[in-house]
Amino acid sequence: MKGNVIIGQSGGPTVVINQSLVGCVLELKRMKKLGRILGARHGVRGIINEELVDLGRLDKARLERLARTPSSALGSSRDKPDLAYCEKILAVFKKLDVETFFYIGGNDSADTCRIVDDLAKASGHPLCAIHVPKTIDNDLAENDHTPGFPSAARFVALAFMGDDLDNRSLPGIKINVVMGRHAGFLTAASALARQREGDGPHLVYVPERAFDIEAFIADVARVQKQYGRCVVAVSEGIHDAAGTPIASKLAAAVEKDAHGNVQLSGSGALGDFLADLLKKRLGAKRVRADTFGYLQRSFPECQSPVDAKEARAVGHFAVKQAAAGADHGSVAIRRKRQKPYGAELALVKLTDVAAKTRVVPGAFLEGNNDVSRAFLDYLAPLCGKLPRPERLS
Amino acid sequence: MKGNVIIGQSGGPTVVINQSLVGCVLELKRMKKLGRILGARHGVRGIINEELVDLGRLDKARLERLARTPSSALGSSRDKPDLAYCEKILAVFKKLDVETFFYIGGNDSADTCRIVDDLAKASGHPLCAIHVPKTIDNDLAENDHTPGFPSAARFVALAFMGDDLDNRSLPGIKINVVMGRHAGFLTAASALARQREGDGPHLVYVPERAFDIEAFIADVARVQKQYGRCVVAVSEGIHDAAGTPIASKLAAAVEKDAHGNVQLSGSGALGDFLADLLKKRLGAKRVRADTFGYLQRSFPECQSPVDAKEARAVGHFAVKQAAAGADHGSVAIRRKRQKPYGAELALVKLTDVAAKTRVVPGAFLEGNNDVSRAFLDYLAPLCGKLPRPERLS
Repeated sequence: MKGNVIIGQSGGPTVVINQSLVGCVLELKRMKKLGRILGARHGVRGIINEELVDLGRLDKARLERLARTPSSALGSSRDKPDLAYCEKILAVFKKLDVETFFYIGGNDSADTCRIVDDLAKASGHPLCAIHVPKTIDNDLAENDHTPGFPSAARFVALAFMGDDLDNRSLPGIKINVVMGRHAGFLTAASALARQREGDGPHLVYVPERAFDIEAFIADVARVQKQYGRCVVAVSEGIHDAAGTPIASKLAAAVEKDAHGNVQLSGSGALGDFLADLLKKRLGAKRVRADTFGYLQRSFPECQSPVDAKEARAVGHFAVKQAAAGADHGSVAIRRKRQKPYGAELALVKLTDVAAKTRVVPGAFLEGNNDVSRAFLDYLAPLCGKLPRPERLS
Repeated sequence: MKGNVIIGQSGGPTVVINQSLVGCVLELKRMKKLGRILGARHGVRGIINEELVDLGRLDKARLERLARTPSSALGSSRDKPDLAYCEKILAVFKKLDVETFFYIGGNDSADTCRIVDDLAKASGHPLCAIHVPKTIDNDLAENDHTPGFPSAARFVALAFMGDDLDNRSLPGIKINVVMGRHAGFLTAASALARQREGDGPHLVYVPERAFDIEAFIADVARVQKQYGRCVVAVSEGIHDAAGTPIASKLAAAVEKDAHGNVQLSGSGALGDFLADLLKKRLGAKRVRADTFGYLQRSFPECQSPVDAKEARAVGHFAVKQAAAGADHGSVAIRRKRQKPYGAELALVKLTDVAAKTRVVPGAFLEGNNDVSRAFLDYLAPLCGKLPRPERLS
């Protein structure tokens, strides 16, 4: 590895994203690499504005504390660089003699790596751009799962476990809205809360299946009749058969982000709409909706040990690949063994991950309102040990 | 203690309410009390319907597992018994030879104890009714704090800590709505998340202060200008100077519970309203609102050790008082020492707690949008050790 290194973090934070940052930095430091290790403030924006911090000066103790801290320590960005933006990035790389770029993020970040890498090659600048995976959505192609997802899934499972006990205590209909625009992995993770017959969530709706309002009402009525209560997991991204998000049908003035996406998180509108619907149509009295929101990706004391370890490992691995002379690539997690759980890392092509979205496979779903045993077997080893609530009778 | 015992749980669950239940049962078992130890399913409703479980048959290991389980294991109730309802309760007590009644709950539960106790005395039935305190709202008179509150406060502080780091990473305006109708203790607890200058929550609005919409907009604009972002804690119970809840102003059709209260929890409407307001009035782009909802009182891995210990202790103490011949009463927690923290228990009059609401004292508040140092000193020893996030620069 020659020249200097820039590391950035992008997209929605996770509770383990700093493990990947620290994994990169510690491995670079271990290699006694002589160039500078620069951190870009707020992702690509920090690169073009040259807002950079010297990560090489941080000692190990501080780096370890940083690794345990939730949310992107460098700051993040929602910018989705186009060709012109990427040319600016490359200009800064040339100016600062940057020959290695690690970008920790989702599929948009992989795409940024791809564009910058292409531009560098075309202009003769020696660059190794490596995408380091991160997303609570678990929607990266080529990966068994992605760093950040297991901890967020643990949060969702714990939240449903507690909320189901709450709902047993004061029975009613409870809807919990979970993050996930196109991929329902996180919503599906709610099912890990179930330990005994009758435990909620009783219904799980993911964006991989069209959401039919009439079927939903009938589903809830059936569960309510059977158990005298009903706990529902709903992905924020549920949509009708035509693909129109249920959430965007509601908003009078719909807010869109830089990627052209409708704002789904940070609002309780979808949950409230569904709760009102059930009150009206079923005449149900106690109907409540909670939208878990940003807590899913930032709650400090909810890290899966496997996730923390793997988030660190993908950072290490990215540096090792760059040092070994990789041209470019994206780090991917592959499951090696199911029992005991084991994984291995691979460097795949940027084009195999960039701007692609993996959704929940059909084998992980059951009908239109549940997950399969195969999904729970897939998920369980990732999330760490869950408590086992005791019950009366 | 003669005759049989009935124990019930009432109102909103907490993560430590079963510690109090188990505290009662273990102490009764230790005393080798010969009568039956009955648990009422779903509070007073389980008494009048004679839906009772034999708690004396549970072994210690199962009781200990139950103690660690969040939410009322016996089931809870929102019924607020009037005189006629209490007469039915007393009739069951007479029929089943119940001479001791422990009711774990808030100020409404203390009031139920008071009415049943009065009726029993008037009719010559020997009864000792003891109210065992529980409420995340921390709003019981005569108490320094109440079991359930420290754990919920810990959840709120951790949630704000993570969310503030998230907001640093992707700056914007973030509103978090916290439970608490009349008492703002839980919302105030958000301030425990702050560790360094500039940390959020930057603004804290409790129901003890009238909420002025124009002042709120100006407050947020000021913080936004100073820090380039703003994290706000808002109690669900905030109201205008006339006492009208901001939340109830919004609802076209307002749902009321059996106590005549407007539904505040289980809806994201208040947060969404405030977020829309800031978008319109400040032209702010990234404004998000989360409503923490039921997670605050049920999240399984968020118990304060002090809270768990005290919730157990109030159960023990209630039984000891009954055994020592107490006529009736309510168990109260008094702070004995601040450093190191220590508390002692007392039995106070039911009439001093019943149907009374304690709110955040003026000395715990600063202006209309913050808490004081005194409040943080009061709260800190109750919530357990908090993580210390690391920062860059």
